[in-house]
Amino acid sequence: MYKLLDTINSPTDLKQIKREDLPALAAEIRRFLLETVAQTGGHLASNLGAVELSIALHYCFDSPTDRIIWDVGHQAYTHKILTGRRDRFHTQRQYGGISGFPKRSESPHDAFGAGHSSTSISAGLGMAVARDLDGKESKVIAVIGDGSLTGGIAFEALNQAGHLHKNLIVVLNDNEMSISRNVGAFSSFVSRKLTGSYFRDLKKEMQGLLQNIPAIGKDILHFARRAENSLKGFLTPGMLFEALGFEYIGPLNGNDLPQLLEVMKNARDLDGPVLIHIMTTKGKGYLPAETNPDVFHGVGPFDVATGKTTAKGGGASYTGVFGATMVKLAEEDERIVAITAAMPDGTGLTPFARRFPERFFDVGIAEQHGLTFAAGLAAEGFRPVTAIYSTFMQRAYDQVFHDICLQKLPVTLALDRGGLVGDDGPTHHGVFDLSYLRHLPELTLMAPKDENELQHMLKTAIYHGRPIALRYPRGTGYGIPLDQELRALEIGRGELITDGGDVTIVAIGSTVYPAVEAAKNLRERGIAATVINARFVKPLDRELILDAAQRTGCLVTVEENALQGGFGSAVLELLADEGLTDVRVKRLGIPDRFIEQGSQAQLRKDLGLDAAGIAAATEAFLKSRQQPPLSLAR
Amino acid sequence: MYKLLDTINSPTDLKQIKREDLPALAAEIRRFLLETVAQTGGHLASNLGAVELSIALHYCFDSPTDRIIWDVGHQAYTHKILTGRRDRFHTQRQYGGISGFPKRSESPHDAFGAGHSSTSISAGLGMAVARDLDGKESKVIAVIGDGSLTGGIAFEALNQAGHLHKNLIVVLNDNEMSISRNVGAFSSFVSRKLTGSYFRDLKKEMQGLLQNIPAIGKDILHFARRAENSLKGFLTPGMLFEALGFEYIGPLNGNDLPQLLEVMKNARDLDGPVLIHIMTTKGKGYLPAETNPDVFHGVGPFDVATGKTTAKGGGASYTGVFGATMVKLAEEDERIVAITAAMPDGTGLTPFARRFPERFFDVGIAEQHGLTFAAGLAAEGFRPVTAIYSTFMQRAYDQVFHDICLQKLPVTLALDRGGLVGDDGPTHHGVFDLSYLRHLPELTLMAPKDENELQHMLKTAIYHGRPIALRYPRGTGYGIPLDQELRALEIGRGELITDGGDVTIVAIGSTVYPAVEAAKNLRERGIAATVINARFVKPLDRELILDAAQRTGCLVTVEENALQGGFGSAVLELLADEGLTDVRVKRLGIPDRFIEQGSQAQLRKDLGLDAAGIAAATEAFLKSRQQPPLSLAR
Repeated sequence: MYKLLDTINSPTDLKQIKREDLPALAAEIRRFLLETVAQTGGHLASNLGAVELSIALHYCFDSPTDRIIWDVGHQAYTHKILTGRRDRFHTQRQYGGISGFPKRSESPHDAFGAGHSSTSISAGLGMAVARDLDGKESKVIAVIGDGSLTGGIAFEALNQAGHLHKNLIVVLNDNEMSISRNVGAFSSFVSRKLTGSYFRDLKKEMQGLLQNIPAIGKDILHFARRAENSLKGFLTPGMLFEALGFEYIGPLNGNDLPQLLEVMKNARDLDGPVLIHIMTTKGKGYLPAETNPDVFHGVGPFDVATGKTTAKGGGASYTGVFGATMVKLAEEDERIVAITAAMPDGTGLTPFARRFPERFFDVGIAEQHGLTFAAGLAAEGFRPVTAIYSTFMQRAYDQVFHDICLQKLPVTLALDRGGLVGDDGPTHHGVFDLSYLRHLPELTLMAPKDENELQHMLKTAIYHGRPIALRYPRGTGYGIPLDQELRALEIGRGELITDGGDVTIVAIGSTVYPAVEAAKNLRERGIAATVINARFVKPLDRELILDAAQRTGCLVTVEENALQGGFGSAVLELLADEGLTDVRVKRLGIPDRFIEQGSQAQLRKDLGLDAAGIAAATEAFLKSRQQPPLSLAR
Repeated sequence: MYKLLDTINSPTDLKQIKREDLPALAAEIRRFLLETVAQTGGHLASNLGAVELSIALHYCFDSPTDRIIWDVGHQAYTHKILTGRRDRFHTQRQYGGISGFPKRSESPHDAFGAGHSSTSISAGLGMAVARDLDGKESKVIAVIGDGSLTGGIAFEALNQAGHLHKNLIVVLNDNEMSISRNVGAFSSFVSRKLTGSYFRDLKKEMQGLLQNIPAIGKDILHFARRAENSLKGFLTPGMLFEALGFEYIGPLNGNDLPQLLEVMKNARDLDGPVLIHIMTTKGKGYLPAETNPDVFHGVGPFDVATGKTTAKGGGASYTGVFGATMVKLAEEDERIVAITAAMPDGTGLTPFARRFPERFFDVGIAEQHGLTFAAGLAAEGFRPVTAIYSTFMQRAYDQVFHDICLQKLPVTLALDRGGLVGDDGPTHHGVFDLSYLRHLPELTLMAPKDENELQHMLKTAIYHGRPIALRYPRGTGYGIPLDQELRALEIGRGELITDGGDVTIVAIGSTVYPAVEAAKNLRERGIAATVINARFVKPLDRELILDAAQRTGCLVTVEENALQGGFGSAVLELLADEGLTDVRVKRLGIPDRFIEQGSQAQLRKDLGLDAAGIAAATEAFLKSRQQPPLSLAR
């Protein structure tokens, strides 16, 4: 029952709406967003802020001929709704539904996919260059948030864009938030407000300067420095972008539709790179989200009337246990410092930040810098813990290699969201970390079976004194009581959980409990399985695994990681290096394709990584042997 | 016979030199650098430019208490010479000698290691934070070139440094070069010269503005825009850094020692982050290098008198064949575009750039942006080839995943310097690419056995229509005649080179010829080896490898890549997935440690990756079998 919105199935339909009706359309879209996201969960606050922007872009430009690129995608919901996906919007982030992010395969209007931040200007510049090489006339628009602008790749792209001087429109959607709050000098600079006193002071300074302008050619450098010092307090955000070669327009109220329409229309006709700086209000139009934009950045299902979550509470999350353990350990050791890349809440570090503000560092969406910054701290005797989602740590792969491992510096990589993450889908699954880290010399790599082991592993990591990574899943643990006394685990020592002569299941991290459960099921079918909690991907517990392999003659490895080069491959390498040719191995894990969105439980089921899947695969594996397993042969 | 230099074995000794004698010391150091680098090869031009800077830093600061961090390390030779490594300097970049880069394990004066660019500000900020947490008083100085400043991590670091407002000195050594030439709007902005007309115009604009200053509070925004437009032409480099929260000093003549000493002395006492911008001349004091700084950036042994190389010429380099093939293919297909990250010469793309300037893009030291920029071009139907050294592609791992593979875009990754690179050592060996790329879904991964196969593989890649990577070694090929007709190879099809019943050697890329040679040696010892040129790491030639494995019962895999998760592991995975337990596998490759510098030949010998090593390992492997190989048992 949306009078205007119901008529819109494409940008062409949108253009039929009268200009004066657009604010009413915006209100309908807000209502639609609220009602839908309250059911599905999703990124609400940033999307509520970008309603007018999305309308203005599709009203003034011609997608898909004109390319609109949404950075990250946390602002692209209205775009999806206006480009033929209104009816499917309730399926977003659901199994089999549409994505929560822009996705090329989903619509021709999604010019470039996203999920990770700060890529839109690079992609847009590539498209602008392509357009010019093709001799076409279309427009390219990259929409990027102020948070994403702190990522180095965005700066790299601005730099080349200014240099190439292609027609490219960058819309900086500045909601003074990034994911949690503004970080860095750049953000505060961008957001500097223009006040009356600003101009009073500017006038005074300029007059003083003019009186002192020297004879041309004489003492120029000295004057230049004075002029600069006088003026530096008067920089406006535009100057920074102008310095990079962009035409700057703004700042504008990004929730003021008439003004946006006017500006977008004019921007079409400008030559060269243009940056339109708009200020929007996160959560706009929904008081609970305006008041608590952090909470409503990424939100589960909630009650629209109260703003309260309707999701069922679970046990302690891995993230929460990590955060609490960090505080506990840091109470006793001043060398422990914590680093996050714009995710203090997401990584559980907010309690640490409150307790130890001077030892907590949010570097912005800047994983590369965060890791090398950590290396600098470690080089001086500190014990930095960098808490970054597994998928985002991919950005800092080279820094892990070059600054941490090569220099053997004691940095702990706390990789949250390792494994399948669920609704965020393929851009966010942390299913490559075991493979992209395992080959780095000097790095120890481990994963806890449950939230209690996580605490001990964190202590293990911090006191290891060398590069070490700790990977744990998204979501709640098993409700295991948490030991009060933390202990450092022996490096490279796994845990024998159950003993059985027919087959050995070697599991790592989140797959250990399902493997134990699978072993119980197998026992009912007459198959006796040894289950090993490997704990360490590197170094492997050589003795434990080899002994079980020789004893049972066949191994099943289980991991929530790519089958290429991951944990199972490490086991294969071990067996080959030891010359154990008579052991058969079946590896279970993430197959060689990108995994779509869905609940973690659903995806694990689909991929055979739950207890039933592991049991079935193990049974089939044993049956496929040319000789039946010994226990069955008897 | 260096009157002053011979007395200096530490910064303390340097401080004994009289101020007025320092220019004479600089001259001695230049002579020493020239004479040594003419023998060893190395990074000459940038180091000649940084002699005065290095003297000034060690004269005014107290290393190692004060931390001096050299970005990349292309400017750190004088630093090494002044900090106790003069006598060993002739061993730099040699097997067993000192490194060509700063290295923590080499000297306490090397505060932070490097080799890859743009990390110094991040590391320095970490150290400055550590110092303040420790309540110490020392200084931290990061020295970074204008080229390195185009890397996104440098911007991420500047941004946080301005925000944290720690005492940190950044010296921007601006030689207007980066590795090959200035790239990007930022560089040209930084280098903008101050002229007389600049001030004439500034005065005029300011007077005009003052006449129009509105009543305070009225139409402020309108005025602000006008003021900005008027002033934007008058930005000085300092303003950009001031905008990020740095105190800016400069630009100074960085080859003027007295001025440098003065400024460094004053900079010690400033609070907060300071950026000292110096302009230096690359190759300073050696005419051939001043005239051709590109040639003398990284140079082999040369004759000081003439500036001509004394290295023996070899056959065609892989780099050269790649570059020539790019031109050839691009002549026939306008969709082919080439992208480099500040390495047009190093990657062989200069001929392409000359022939197709509008289809050639140097993005600066910005691998992340380069890959996403390529993805943007590919999304519009172009066929971008990104030529980047294997070790530097590590910076763009996430972009390869997120922007290219996930979107199945037809970008060709041309990974030059795959495998052992020689003198540059552990920061530069390209020995992880097969491992960090192999697990990415949708990516095809191949490596040519020789320079002729390289050409065909490049054609294969460009016309594959999906993400594909091509990895080839540093150095010259085998002098193989180059086919004039290029052909696309069948994806996933290897090549059977020799046939023998005792053992199968499966080699990839640069190890194929040594494997063939090894097979000849083995034949003389009565062992008949099948040799396979795998060509593809992904997908493997299943049929060819399985057939040989079953026929011979034992496989040796050979690769110039980490043994963890690399090519050999791919073969293990294949055998395990096929249930071939009765095949024994010996994997040869790079062991799980960082490999030091040395000639490629020496390192290959040490690691057993030359023909003799492969033969010896194969023979030992066969002997270690509980049953002797069939051919010996007869």
